[in-house]
Amino acid sequence: MAVAAAQSRPEKDSARRVEAKKRFEAVMCRPFDLPETPATEAALLEFVFGEVWSRPGLSQRNRRWIALSCASAADTVGPIEKNVYAALASGDMTLEELQEFVLHFAVYCGWPKASLVEQIIWQQAFAISDERGLPAPEMRTLEPWNPGQDPEERLRNGERCFADINRVPPPGRTSPYTTAGILNFVFGEIWQRPALSVRDRRFITLACVGVDDTVLPIQSHFYSALKSRDVSCDECRELVLQFAAYSGWPKASLLDRIIAETWAKIEAEESQPTP
Amino acid sequence: MAVAAAQSRPEKDSARRVEAKKRFEAVMCRPFDLPETPATEAALLEFVFGEVWSRPGLSQRNRRWIALSCASAADTVGPIEKNVYAALASGDMTLEELQEFVLHFAVYCGWPKASLVEQIIWQQAFAISDERGLPAPEMRTLEPWNPGQDPEERLRNGERCFADINRVPPPGRTSPYTTAGILNFVFGEIWQRPALSVRDRRFITLACVGVDDTVLPIQSHFYSALKSRDVSCDECRELVLQFAAYSGWPKASLLDRIIAETWAKIEAEESQPTP
Amino acid sequence: MAVAAAQSRPEKDSARRVEAKKRFEAVMCRPFDLPETPATEAALLEFVFGEVWSRPGLSQRNRRWIALSCASAADTVGPIEKNVYAALASGDMTLEELQEFVLHFAVYCGWPKASLVEQIIWQQAFAISDERGLPAPEMRTLEPWNPGQDPEERLRNGERCFADINRVPPPGRTSPYTTAGILNFVFGEIWQRPALSVRDRRFITLACVGVDDTVLPIQSHFYSALKSRDVSCDECRELVLQFAAYSGWPKASLLDRIIAETWAKIEAEESQPTP
Repeated sequence: MAVAAAQSRPEKDSARRVEAKKRFEAVMCRPFDLPETPATEAALLEFVFGEVWSRPGLSQRNRRWIALSCASAADTVGPIEKNVYAALASGDMTLEELQEFVLHFAVYCGWPKASLVEQIIWQQAFAISDERGLPAPEMRTLEPWNPGQDPEERLRNGERCFADINRVPPPGRTSPYTTAGILNFVFGEIWQRPALSVRDRRFITLACVGVDDTVLPIQSHFYSALKSRDVSCDECRELVLQFAAYSGWPKASLLDRIIAETWAKIEAEESQPTP
Repeated sequence: MAVAAAQSRPEKDSARRVEAKKRFEAVMCRPFDLPETPATEAALLEFVFGEVWSRPGLSQRNRRWIALSCASAADTVGPIEKNVYAALASGDMTLEELQEFVLHFAVYCGWPKASLVEQIIWQQAFAISDERGLPAPEMRTLEPWNPGQDPEERLRNGERCFADINRVPPPGRTSPYTTAGILNFVFGEIWQRPALSVRDRRFITLACVGVDDTVLPIQSHFYSALKSRDVSCDECRELVLQFAAYSGWPKASLLDRIIAETWAKIEAEESQPTP
Repeated sequence: MAVAAAQSRPEKDSARRVEAKKRFEAVMCRPFDLPETPATEAALLEFVFGEVWSRPGLSQRNRRWIALSCASAADTVGPIEKNVYAALASGDMTLEELQEFVLHFAVYCGWPKASLVEQIIWQQAFAISDERGLPAPEMRTLEPWNPGQDPEERLRNGERCFADINRVPPPGRTSPYTTAGILNFVFGEIWQRPALSVRDRRFITLACVGVDDTVLPIQSHFYSALKSRDVSCDECRELVLQFAAYSGWPKASLLDRIIAETWAKIEAEESQPTP
């Protein structure tokens, strides 16, 4: 296979391409050394790094949550490894934060996909400490969440957290899904864990429901992210662009449309005179 | 990688955690030896095994169909291997049943994903016979389905089976999708094969359409599962909780909503006085 | 929501943007009238239409198979509708070809997703005939495939077709998946149906296995597409770029890597002196 090395075609190193390579190297924490194919040149280098990652409007950390969620959902080993490596090597995320990310991701995209990401996070953390001559990361022994907490108290706790995060009343305890699942586990524990901020969790959740492309959860999570002002409307729109690069245009277009509808609804709600 | 053994931490072994580990070991047919991370502790051990698999309402075999379908759809090697191993090692499923599962799964989630599962099933079957000092499972040569059957007869057969399974009239033979696909193959053969019961196929199908999250097939398959009384409303709701653990809450929430609507529709239909 | 109309910002109508809009309108067969968000401007207009669809190397029809497969797999109503409309309105595909596409897609991505696409194809075909004042498309009643064919003959037929398409010997009749599925149905019928060419089916299949991201089927389908010379190596690489736009970078990067490995393997095979 004859893949010409980049340096053999100096005419291609336009200012735009040079900037894109710099961005790639800053974000991915490694030299750009991919073979020149239409996808790596036009899609990855020029678009994903030359345009998307270079934009203002979201921090690099925000963008990483989106890329990590989308790559984890796509379940492709190489991109997950490289994005996890970059998240740790850049210092943008700690090992503890990435571990907490996996737990949150498991809730939104299911346990099987999360287990691969979990494994990759440890591998990359060991690789980095090895690369830097540092001691290997320790496996902490974790404490149970709220030892001694009564299950009924946990449910009430979940109902309060549900209302706070979703900005709508909690569902009735009428099915195993809502009771054992949503109230007891997702809001009775996951969203309350301190290792990630609610804003971090919003970015991860918005990307995950986008990949799942189930309309109702997309609507409810954009509604609550916007209503709470945890994420602004401009940030949501920027999120969709980052998401489009990692999960494709069709799923992104659904998000873009739902953001417009949801924001219009919130503006209408808030322009009502309160009695 | 030094992962401390559980017995060195007696303080953590609350009654709840001890029960969860027992359940993990009973379901997965192996010792619990995963590293302690937020995802394995809070999600996998405490929630998925401590709560979900411990619930009454569905048999362990029913729950396995859901876990196997979701892990296969997520297309993640490790979880597929471990769930296939456990299905065989527990005796809950035979090799023939798992092979039939792959064929049914291929129809609902596509051949490429099925081909990975097919491969893993053989590997795990060989591993178990090896572990137990038994002769390796034989590769039988299968006979064609209904030798001598004419394609027109096969289509008519498919139309009858479609009506019986779906509780609505079959589609017209007006497109390749309905004719060559749905009538000839999916109902002309797959749903009629004796190696799995219709109730088994219902569980697999409900989980698969849930992962695909295409609204119409979800509605039609929950409708027919409930209408036929092959699966009760409580069982469907329990299915959603099991599904949530393996494919994530957003997709589960759509199922929960559709079950409620569909059950209400069936109750309304059935309270009509018949003329 | 105040989304400024494009004409109010003449400064943005760079030559690049004007070209991108022309391409959008030529491909999608409708005026560009999307709200200006980061995703529609930077991703859809400038990248997807300004760059990807504008490239040589694949015909517009080839690119449509990829976009249709990816949008169908993503299961998002709006993009499926718009891509189906454009495929028909441009004259690039006939209604019969799109119906055959659904059947092929069902095999590779599952029946539930296919059923949504099937429905949308009819809706769009009716909408176009209505728009043009033409009679509505007729619902033909289809004949069974190969009436009079014996199931054993069908299996042998499938074995020959498998070897021809995949360029490797057919699998044994040792499991329901290979026998009832792969040999009887996928190669015993689907790949032999005349309504689409093998080259068309290659494009659809390559995009579908890419969305599924299961390594082995991706390897085997790129191997056979390249080995048969049905699709050239440059065309495969161009396919990955088109795919990246519709299914995201992580899944595309796996394809790009597998094409390079597969092409190297084929070159090595073919440089061996034949004895």
